[in-house]
Amino acid sequence: MSASSIPKVNYSQGLMTVLPLFYVGWADGILSPGESQKIREKIDSFEFLTPEEKATALSWSEPTNPPQDETYQEWQKIILKYCKDTSEDEKNSLIDLGLTLAKNCDDCSDPTYWANDQTKTALLELQNIMGVHNVEINQHLSKQEVVSPAADFDVAQMTLALDKEYTEYKAKIKTLLSYPSFTLQNIPEKGAYREHILEQTRALADQGLGALAFAPAYGGEDDMGKYAAMFDVLGYHDLSLAIKFGVQFGLFGGSINWLGTKYHHDKYLKDTGTLDLAGCFAMTETGHGSNVRGLQTTATYDPASDEIIIHTPTEADGKEYIGNAMHSKMASVFAQLIVNGERHGVHAILVPLRDADHKELPGIRIADCGYKIGLNGVDNGRIWFDQVRVPRLNLLNRFGDIDEHGNYSSPISNPMRRFFTMLGTLVGGRVCVPRAGLSAAKTGLAIAIKHSLKRRQFEQKPGEAETLLLDYPSHQRRLMPYLAKSYAISFGLDYLTERFVKRSEKDIREIESLAAGMKAYATWFTTASLQECREACGGKGYLSENRLGQLKADTEIFTTFEGDNTVLMQLVSKGLLSNFSKEFHDDGFVAVLRMLGNQFSTLIMEQNPYTKRKSSSDYLLSGHFQLAAFKYREQKLLYTVSQRMRGLIKNKMNSTDAFLRCQTHLLSLANAFVERTILEQFIKQAKQVKDQNTKLMLKQLTQLYALHTIESHKDFYLETEYMSPTKTKAIRRLVDQLCKETRNHAEALVDAFAIPKEILQAPIAV
Amino acid sequence: MSASSIPKVNYSQGLMTVLPLFYVGWADGILSPGESQKIREKIDSFEFLTPEEKATALSWSEPTNPPQDETYQEWQKIILKYCKDTSEDEKNSLIDLGLTLAKNCDDCSDPTYWANDQTKTALLELQNIMGVHNVEINQHLSKQEVVSPAADFDVAQMTLALDKEYTEYKAKIKTLLSYPSFTLQNIPEKGAYREHILEQTRALADQGLGALAFAPAYGGEDDMGKYAAMFDVLGYHDLSLAIKFGVQFGLFGGSINWLGTKYHHDKYLKDTGTLDLAGCFAMTETGHGSNVRGLQTTATYDPASDEIIIHTPTEADGKEYIGNAMHSKMASVFAQLIVNGERHGVHAILVPLRDADHKELPGIRIADCGYKIGLNGVDNGRIWFDQVRVPRLNLLNRFGDIDEHGNYSSPISNPMRRFFTMLGTLVGGRVCVPRAGLSAAKTGLAIAIKHSLKRRQFEQKPGEAETLLLDYPSHQRRLMPYLAKSYAISFGLDYLTERFVKRSEKDIREIESLAAGMKAYATWFTTASLQECREACGGKGYLSENRLGQLKADTEIFTTFEGDNTVLMQLVSKGLLSNFSKEFHDDGFVAVLRMLGNQFSTLIMEQNPYTKRKSSSDYLLSGHFQLAAFKYREQKLLYTVSQRMRGLIKNKMNSTDAFLRCQTHLLSLANAFVERTILEQFIKQAKQVKDQNTKLMLKQLTQLYALHTIESHKDFYLETEYMSPTKTKAIRRLVDQLCKETRNHAEALVDAFAIPKEILQAPIAV
Repeated sequence: MSASSIPKVNYSQGLMTVLPLFYVGWADGILSPGESQKIREKIDSFEFLTPEEKATALSWSEPTNPPQDETYQEWQKIILKYCKDTSEDEKNSLIDLGLTLAKNCDDCSDPTYWANDQTKTALLELQNIMGVHNVEINQHLSKQEVVSPAADFDVAQMTLALDKEYTEYKAKIKTLLSYPSFTLQNIPEKGAYREHILEQTRALADQGLGALAFAPAYGGEDDMGKYAAMFDVLGYHDLSLAIKFGVQFGLFGGSINWLGTKYHHDKYLKDTGTLDLAGCFAMTETGHGSNVRGLQTTATYDPASDEIIIHTPTEADGKEYIGNAMHSKMASVFAQLIVNGERHGVHAILVPLRDADHKELPGIRIADCGYKIGLNGVDNGRIWFDQVRVPRLNLLNRFGDIDEHGNYSSPISNPMRRFFTMLGTLVGGRVCVPRAGLSAAKTGLAIAIKHSLKRRQFEQKPGEAETLLLDYPSHQRRLMPYLAKSYAISFGLDYLTERFVKRSEKDIREIESLAAGMKAYATWFTTASLQECREACGGKGYLSENRLGQLKADTEIFTTFEGDNTVLMQLVSKGLLSNFSKEFHDDGFVAVLRMLGNQFSTLIMEQNPYTKRKSSSDYLLSGHFQLAAFKYREQKLLYTVSQRMRGLIKNKMNSTDAFLRCQTHLLSLANAFVERTILEQFIKQAKQVKDQNTKLMLKQLTQLYALHTIESHKDFYLETEYMSPTKTKAIRRLVDQLCKETRNHAEALVDAFAIPKEILQAPIAV
Repeated sequence: MSASSIPKVNYSQGLMTVLPLFYVGWADGILSPGESQKIREKIDSFEFLTPEEKATALSWSEPTNPPQDETYQEWQKIILKYCKDTSEDEKNSLIDLGLTLAKNCDDCSDPTYWANDQTKTALLELQNIMGVHNVEINQHLSKQEVVSPAADFDVAQMTLALDKEYTEYKAKIKTLLSYPSFTLQNIPEKGAYREHILEQTRALADQGLGALAFAPAYGGEDDMGKYAAMFDVLGYHDLSLAIKFGVQFGLFGGSINWLGTKYHHDKYLKDTGTLDLAGCFAMTETGHGSNVRGLQTTATYDPASDEIIIHTPTEADGKEYIGNAMHSKMASVFAQLIVNGERHGVHAILVPLRDADHKELPGIRIADCGYKIGLNGVDNGRIWFDQVRVPRLNLLNRFGDIDEHGNYSSPISNPMRRFFTMLGTLVGGRVCVPRAGLSAAKTGLAIAIKHSLKRRQFEQKPGEAETLLLDYPSHQRRLMPYLAKSYAISFGLDYLTERFVKRSEKDIREIESLAAGMKAYATWFTTASLQECREACGGKGYLSENRLGQLKADTEIFTTFEGDNTVLMQLVSKGLLSNFSKEFHDDGFVAVLRMLGNQFSTLIMEQNPYTKRKSSSDYLLSGHFQLAAFKYREQKLLYTVSQRMRGLIKNKMNSTDAFLRCQTHLLSLANAFVERTILEQFIKQAKQVKDQNTKLMLKQLTQLYALHTIESHKDFYLETEYMSPTKTKAIRRLVDQLCKETRNHAEALVDAFAIPKEILQAPIAV
């Protein structure tokens, strides 16, 4: 290792052109054997290098023989010496910098020679192969970053970009929830907690908020958008309240509103909206949750008495987890309707549960589900029916009716279509639940980020202040991608809500798939981000006063209820494979699969080896590249899974078994579909923002969301050879830089959620 | 798409040899453009194919032009026709099968020609490039799997393999905890819950279990191994009890035992072991948790009164999260010792907290930390000291003493070394906490797996029984890797415990690193696996009665206490970079880095392009391959991070800043170190098991743990080009198969944890 062992290098004009590339290349990690080979080939092709220069440059490209310390320091000296008058602009390009060195160096024979386009292109190609970023040199020479810093933005403008037309309305609700009567309380005993939540639900109903989605005749505003926005605000507060509210007005009220007709509306809707009639939504059974078609409870029409008999066949078929069960007077019971011995599938029937003294009516048995992980302010119960009789008119008869002669009729003759149409009207829950969950996640992020900007840990140098948590790269990596993702999902959910509010018969299947996918993706995000926030706050995060535990515990079940996420994601894939239109059956399916295959063949042909390795930061930061990568993943997975299924079906496997075999593959496909949709919407909606600084900040968040997501699927991109290792490494470095840059705006970004401190409450955050 | 558009193929002898490869290759997904190129090159080199045969084979290798249905069915017919008399053995190799087809087919000109070694090798190379598994053909032709099924094993033998020499002892403790007085209770109100736990702790102490690690003179058995085994059993039960037990006997008792001398042992140890003296371990402060060296509480020696004055400088410097604080009479207080104005670093001092009436003594202020996410049976509190005076002799003086003349002395002159030696004696906590956490995870797995073998969801065909949850591939993917990992970590923790129990001065630094890494890895596993178990049980998992929520909530803080996991993992990396020996400073460091670099250069040179693509299942299932891959990851990360740091230090960055810059990289390195250690131990200890069927089952679990872990780092292996996409895809398929195979033994594997049903309790699991 003595200095004498270093061969004396003549830093000639040609070598100067590549020096900055090697300087940066060796500064950050090492070259892999694969890269080295490509670098050598490229250098060998350079016409503007002498054989001697080539030999030296090649000796710098050996992964097993990195430059020695002295050599490296010599490079640094040279760069500093010859570029001290170089403008920041020139320094922003390693190629320009190399050309400047060549022009300025002592050896320079022809100062103009180097500036020709051919040389520049050749050098750019080398840079791409090496995967080094232009501005990285500034990380060594100065402190500048490759990601251009976003300007400070106006927090109110950002709130407006997030809340859009509901900004004012949401602010009003926030004010309401900031009243002392709504102060968050930790009530460990479930009985007292449930009473407290019931009271608060009533207070919301008193403000007319329960009836928002109903028609004005029933006290409402016919405004599903506002109803959905309620959940954004309730999600910052107490999730028990959000769910209690949703069960009473959205599920019970919604079933009357959407599955009933004027008779039911007139009789029940107003009292439901005011909570004078407390009701529950009795769909799930112990053995049948996501599989609604398999419900066992029966509703048998008895012509003799003109009544419907509701019955639970066995103990295991009892209704389970029914929210509001302990407070309700009435239930919307989902059961297999049997008329004249014929089964017509699942229908909903209104069944009174309790008398005026709140005593259970004959044949009704209700049991408390007891304590749960969270949501203990919601009274979940089990319900069994023993030959309970209700009038025929209690059938919610919009999609299936029994007339006074005891004959069944339906406007939808196909039972399968009827079933899906009925369930389709209830998609509202899947629109609102992820909104509440997202707000809980945003609350967690606000708490964890504010804490990390106050809490210090470990001094780096004796006598200095200890380092802020959020100044640790690992802490930035923990929280910043989640922050960006919370924004991304926010725009994604707005898109879903808008599509849902403006839905038509034609696109309902597609919207259902969208709702299923978004609900699953957003609620998984809620669970994961709150977990990370808790861990990021250490011991403080474990104390109940700091809310993270409660938020996590309350939203934990969001991944299960309103449809288990894994089941929902399979729905999404089925939708994609059948193009949202066809009923899923083997013959039609094979045709669709074949069509998809043909489409994709063109797509893979478009992969081009140059693009595969192209890793300049400009390119990687562009929405064009990011969206193309997201689309590729979706299309490729759609293609490969359809090919696999085709193969299995060709082998005489039935499509159900083939589905089972490809299950994990299908889940990836659904994930890719949702992510592509979200990125598309995020980019699109961010572009529409008027305020310039807000728009720029959002653009940076789209970049972080997109590149971090790509990074998380790096195994896919490498395995399909859509990206080279050089490229994925470059993406990792960009994500690091984006995290660091976002850190500077982190507090403003969580302030833009506009969570009043009366609601935020956590001592570590205020 | 009409049949006439298919060129008529002459299935000649040569084509027959490759037919099974293409049949399987196209059955599962498609070929990528990159693979296709390599396949074409290989085929082109086959000397035993005619030009015509090559052209046909090449036409089968086009990713954009997969074989049409008719062609594919024709292949199937041919294979079935010519191999109907083929033995299962021959069918187990696609190459043998191809050669059999060639031999049997109508076109066969020379039945012996094909059997030569050269042809076989060439075909094997093609198979490797295509990444298809030998036995996959059986998935299409019959139902056999590539992974050979493990025989049923004797559950008691498996328990013996897990619990080893503590099998009998643990069974005794389990019996004790199965008594009705230990029946698990859900007590929401913290006051009542804490009393309940205090009472149970006393019951354990009454059995002599509190003093296990102390010397016989103080009621103990000097048996750290038994003490650690206690946590395995307590972890199945109530984690509040485990932690209360650990705080009283391990932390408070341990500080007296390890940091005190005979005076303290004689005076306090016996009463501590019987819980007649309740004590707490007052180390953490609000602003200083993982950074113990930065503690602010002072312990100033006052020569005038021969006392030590304990003082909390500001409100924020109060002791925080102190377990047992509300029940304790005394605390081991960690504070900066100041003697004659000189600071000697952190020392522990015994400080009485309360009088006989349980009233706080003068100068002591204690506040309840209130409700927490979990562990509400443990009384955590905050403690402030206002000029509290204790006798000089209360200093736990094994590593630093003040004599009667008021002079400080220590057997370890270097303050840094003294500090680490003192902390080193307390590593026991990091040995026991992950054991309790692992048992909680095992309990969760037992509950989720037993539930998934009872609960059915969705019928696949009308009239059939609905499918068991664990028969869904996605459900197997959710739970089986965690099950395998719970076994792996179990063996890893046994190794740690053994090293700790038998530790010597010489290897203490290494054991500390090992404990730090294992604690972090195992507790993160606990959190993640319990989360997955909860989700896998859907709504049932959300009910408190099924325990998953409580287990998760209680162990949640394990990732933070006894050292924050992220901080611990950095300790591990520092240990690796300094080779567990040197104090970390820039000069020595650069030398170590240089040495590491040289070692690794050899290692990467050993990568061999054939191995990189080698993807036969035999090879991938071998411990040789798996361990090599784990070691490569560790070595490669050690090398790259050391190169990066060298680069940064060369650039005049100090090593602390360089560490900060490379933080996420260092965390990956620590993870790789722990995983390599665990796999090594798992393989080694599994081999030592005598019972044959138990050994075989364990071998399969090592395979699942190893391949699933490799799969989870697939991005790394692809990015470093250590593995080709063909290989990672082959690994994915093997993991699928291993999950499926493990499913058949899942119930027996959780039964081997031997959790009595009185302790398991969850209604969905019994």
